[in-house]
Amino acid sequence: MKIGVFDSGIGGLTVLKAIRERFPRTDIIYLGDTARVPYGTRSRETVIRYSLECADFLLAKDIELLVIACNTASSYAMEDLSSHSPVPVVGVVEPGVEEALRHTSGRVGVIGTRGTIGSGSYQKLLENRGVTAVAKACPLFVPLVEEGLTEGPIALEVAKLYLRELKESCVDTLILGCTHYPLLKKAISQVLDNMVIIDSSEAVARSLSEMVLDDGESKLFLFFTDDSPNLPSMIRRILGSDHSYEVVREVPKT
Amino acid sequence: MKIGVFDSGIGGLTVLKAIRERFPRTDIIYLGDTARVPYGTRSRETVIRYSLECADFLLAKDIELLVIACNTASSYAMEDLSSHSPVPVVGVVEPGVEEALRHTSGRVGVIGTRGTIGSGSYQKLLENRGVTAVAKACPLFVPLVEEGLTEGPIALEVAKLYLRELKESCVDTLILGCTHYPLLKKAISQVLDNMVIIDSSEAVARSLSEMVLDDGESKLFLFFTDDSPNLPSMIRRILGSDHSYEVVREVPKT
Repeated sequence: MKIGVFDSGIGGLTVLKAIRERFPRTDIIYLGDTARVPYGTRSRETVIRYSLECADFLLAKDIELLVIACNTASSYAMEDLSSHSPVPVVGVVEPGVEEALRHTSGRVGVIGTRGTIGSGSYQKLLENRGVTAVAKACPLFVPLVEEGLTEGPIALEVAKLYLRELKESCVDTLILGCTHYPLLKKAISQVLDNMVIIDSSEAVARSLSEMVLDDGESKLFLFFTDDSPNLPSMIRRILGSDHSYEVVREVPKT
Repeated sequence: MKIGVFDSGIGGLTVLKAIRERFPRTDIIYLGDTARVPYGTRSRETVIRYSLECADFLLAKDIELLVIACNTASSYAMEDLSSHSPVPVVGVVEPGVEEALRHTSGRVGVIGTRGTIGSGSYQKLLENRGVTAVAKACPLFVPLVEEGLTEGPIALEVAKLYLRELKESCVDTLILGCTHYPLLKKAISQVLDNMVIIDSSEAVARSLSEMVLDDGESKLFLFFTDDSPNLPSMIRRILGSDHSYEVVREVPKT
């Protein structure tokens, strides 16, 4: 089986890794839209347009399942992608919510980009299931990770700034609603001790169990829309080994 | 006279403001590429492509002078834009260097995005003039400004992190090589006291003196490639008054 995975950048490689660990023989094609990252600060309309373009790139490569490994794209474009795509579409929002429901006793925190939190996608799903949602956008977390400042005094100060409200609001479970955030887990845990922390990449991989036939040839193709000197090292850091990749300057225009 | 000004986002409005103060009757068309901001982390090739697309949008509106109000675009795309454009092109790098040369006694510091500093544009110009350049990329400064954290302990800690080397290297003049950085002037001055700080927007406006006929109708047209809820307030904050703007979803493809 051949799965397509896309993200606004490199964060979605954490989702790819979790899928690959669970389905080692499945072929995967990944597209990171590094020429237009981040999606988290863009309008709904623009995120939908970019997401459709990424999907078309992958669909042209005969994928049989499409995974949106970006929380902002999952929040804004799930509906449009589902009606546009001839193959099933899975996002990162629902699996994260399902996982949180297994742990919480009634109050769940969600952190993400301004787009993800502003869309209300997590809050709606959680509240439909009778759970109180406390949401907070953390726009500086992605730049901190990309700058490699995942630990130390600056990361801790920024975590305190964003998570103070959550600490005071008695949530027992926290969804990391952005693929970059697991890398800040240490600073987050320092501020929010004794909280169950949900990393969506694991949850997404688990949610695919009934959809994936693990009968491929373990092929992995990585595509990015822009190159960067630190791309090889970020790939190695997240996937645990070196992988070649191809830069595609143009994704299809919708 | 009609001038076109483009930037990767809203930071270039500081350049627009300085031009408008110096040439109050000149008509200005501004394009902020907010659908693809930031440019500072992208490759040379992608920044050149985006810059040519922005230029074509403005050239189609019959401008008589093109101002690149983005340091990364000025650093990477100046040559391509100059040979592409039928009207004169002015960037932000040279005017900032000229201004620094008026103040320094031999050692100039430059801070900017990873793209601007990595391109070596400032360093080459300064060293050609016999001045030692000490350059440092400060990738977290733009997200800090966009998050409104221009003062306080986090801004100061980040400023210390980036500027420590400059403090120790005996420069007497510092070029703010990014249009967002003037908003962090307080934190920067706290770390680097007794240093002349060069804000390029003033320098750019001054450098236009012999090129601009201030004989227009004071018209101002603002275009952005993506909308955002805080765009009106950012425009007000930088320009000092409200201005309407138009969102253009597609700039010409080169």
